[in-house]
Amino acid sequence: MHDSVKEVMNKYLSEQFYNPSSTYLLAQQVKKDINDARKTVAHWLGAKPAEIIFTAGATESNNLAIRGVMEKFPSANVVVSAIEHEAVLLPSTKYECKVAPVDSKGRLTLSKLAEHVDDQTALVSIIYANNEIGTIQSLSDVSKLIKDVRHDRKLRGVRQPLYLHTDAVQATNYLDMHVSKLGVDLMTLSGAKIYGPKQMGCLYVRGGTKLEPLIYGGGQEKSLRGGTENVAGIIGFAKAIELVQADRHSEVKRLGELRNKLMKTLVDSLEGVQVAGTMKKRLPNNLNISFPGINGERLVMELDERGVMVATGAACEASNNEPSYVLKALGQSDQKASSSLRISLGRDTNVSEIEKAGKTIVDVVKSLRQN
Amino acid sequence: MHDSVKEVMNKYLSEQFYNPSSTYLLAQQVKKDINDARKTVAHWLGAKPAEIIFTAGATESNNLAIRGVMEKFPSANVVVSAIEHEAVLLPSTKYECKVAPVDSKGRLTLSKLAEHVDDQTALVSIIYANNEIGTIQSLSDVSKLIKDVRHDRKLRGVRQPLYLHTDAVQATNYLDMHVSKLGVDLMTLSGAKIYGPKQMGCLYVRGGTKLEPLIYGGGQEKSLRGGTENVAGIIGFAKAIELVQADRHSEVKRLGELRNKLMKTLVDSLEGVQVAGTMKKRLPNNLNISFPGINGERLVMELDERGVMVATGAACEASNNEPSYVLKALGQSDQKASSSLRISLGRDTNVSEIEKAGKTIVDVVKSLRQN
Repeated sequence: MHDSVKEVMNKYLSEQFYNPSSTYLLAQQVKKDINDARKTVAHWLGAKPAEIIFTAGATESNNLAIRGVMEKFPSANVVVSAIEHEAVLLPSTKYECKVAPVDSKGRLTLSKLAEHVDDQTALVSIIYANNEIGTIQSLSDVSKLIKDVRHDRKLRGVRQPLYLHTDAVQATNYLDMHVSKLGVDLMTLSGAKIYGPKQMGCLYVRGGTKLEPLIYGGGQEKSLRGGTENVAGIIGFAKAIELVQADRHSEVKRLGELRNKLMKTLVDSLEGVQVAGTMKKRLPNNLNISFPGINGERLVMELDERGVMVATGAACEASNNEPSYVLKALGQSDQKASSSLRISLGRDTNVSEIEKAGKTIVDVVKSLRQN
Repeated sequence: MHDSVKEVMNKYLSEQFYNPSSTYLLAQQVKKDINDARKTVAHWLGAKPAEIIFTAGATESNNLAIRGVMEKFPSANVVVSAIEHEAVLLPSTKYECKVAPVDSKGRLTLSKLAEHVDDQTALVSIIYANNEIGTIQSLSDVSKLIKDVRHDRKLRGVRQPLYLHTDAVQATNYLDMHVSKLGVDLMTLSGAKIYGPKQMGCLYVRGGTKLEPLIYGGGQEKSLRGGTENVAGIIGFAKAIELVQADRHSEVKRLGELRNKLMKTLVDSLEGVQVAGTMKKRLPNNLNISFPGINGERLVMELDERGVMVATGAACEASNNEPSYVLKALGQSDQKASSSLRISLGRDTNVSEIEKAGKTIVDVVKSLRQN
């Protein structure tokens, strides 16, 4: 967590611990602080404050988006891409769910997506930038498609609404988040991924979007999400989004250069390594690379012992030992997917760490190949 | 929030910010710390660590309990008391829901509860101690009833399982929380109510209880609750429950005496005041008292200006200006309910505050009555 985030949260963890729903003045001040934070978040998304629903993190936001829409339209279907996060895939499979494929670079093919959308589709959910391979989807193109479908439905008198949701958790540090440019109706953000608090997120909900609550309670968040507000978390989240969005252009450049330097080291020093996904439309902090003949899990452990902390796939699935479904959706074999590393860079990553990581990975891979 | 709670949380907000699902050693240490916290919580509930599901607060826990059971048995019904918190009432009304009345003291009548339970009842949810009037229910008696029903169902070959849930949010600071003594299958706890972190809670789920997740994601919390764990929150929650449970006998005595002192001042100095609920089975920190002829909302504002922060009903409902449904369930008229104050004492409340509050309330009520 960013020091400045921790700092602004501090007083709400002790002396300003009031329940913002209480009527006395000190509690009402806290309510005002929450609303200021809501304005800050809305500003960076180009949204209205009333369109920001604070939640306990991205998983809840994704569930609220998917289940919230689908419970409103129980006989409808939902279309997702094959490389959505589990927090989108799992709630979607509770309903009639169609999965649109991606190409070998992890990019959605618009025509194939279009084939999956029918008159009973209520929701399309496309991850803005993938968590394992960093591939960025063109949401504005997807939203043009959605608009065409809506227009066509209107002409034909089909009354089923169609919404576009995006899980933008991985994108927030580096990309433009303006909802009108992206053309999304629902967007998930995470505090933990932007150097803000864990267990904190939000769902952008465009005004007029029909949504059923996931958690019923005391009427907070426009009755879309019950529960006393996480005051410190909300304040910290707003600070975090401000910090990452204000810095994003320089971070994209800095991290992109560091990532490319690491990639060059690995590609130049080791035979047969291959990068998954595309380099053109990719988050600057992500590298996903396979080392033929090497077991990824083993490699992760060896690197950990030498102070290099990397992963094979998503952390949530680290314990299941299955090859990544994201890499398999790109057409990779089990064997290739199992020989892959997912390397993430961040705010604290510097050139000496990148040099050390590069050298260490090269050494360990060579030594494993010799045995 | 208790200083010691804040202290133990601190490092997990910055340097120990690892995702506990990651495989590298530093992340695995965080996972171990979470599991130690789970053991601490389980200890104070007399439960097994695997029976503790961490959530983002009491509202989510209540929703997970109610919706979790009811989604497993969609044609079943749920029975609740008339004075449950909204976070129980609202999710329950999504299903076939029967409401058992309470008497004029706010106590559940067991025979009336029994009349509401039929062969299609999957869940009974009874609040351990009420948030507005502090009335404590005898859960062990309720659980005996539930056991009899189960036994009878078995004899008759009725296969519908029956579970007992309690919202124990208000009870945790003062009462015995051992699940085997209470005889409950599901129990909701809140961090914010025990001088722990906001947006943090847990649901005790007895082994073998059939439950559908509310939030689907990366398989955390035995797949019952997706989302990266709120590490700092979990660590703080465990510390908080330890602190309040270790201290509870002395706090019950201390706060009970202070509360009774305040009550005596009000009853002795003001004509016609009446205490809602029972004094025998009541949380030591709660007073709910009506001042005939006085508008409660007005009284709250006048007291706020003089530094006495109290409420009319539940904070969540403070803005709706309706008379409390809890007081109405006790048979109070709208008028009487609207002339009531809910006064809560806590860890920081001392005798001089109680004397000041008593004097201020008496002065303000007298002055309002003169106008």
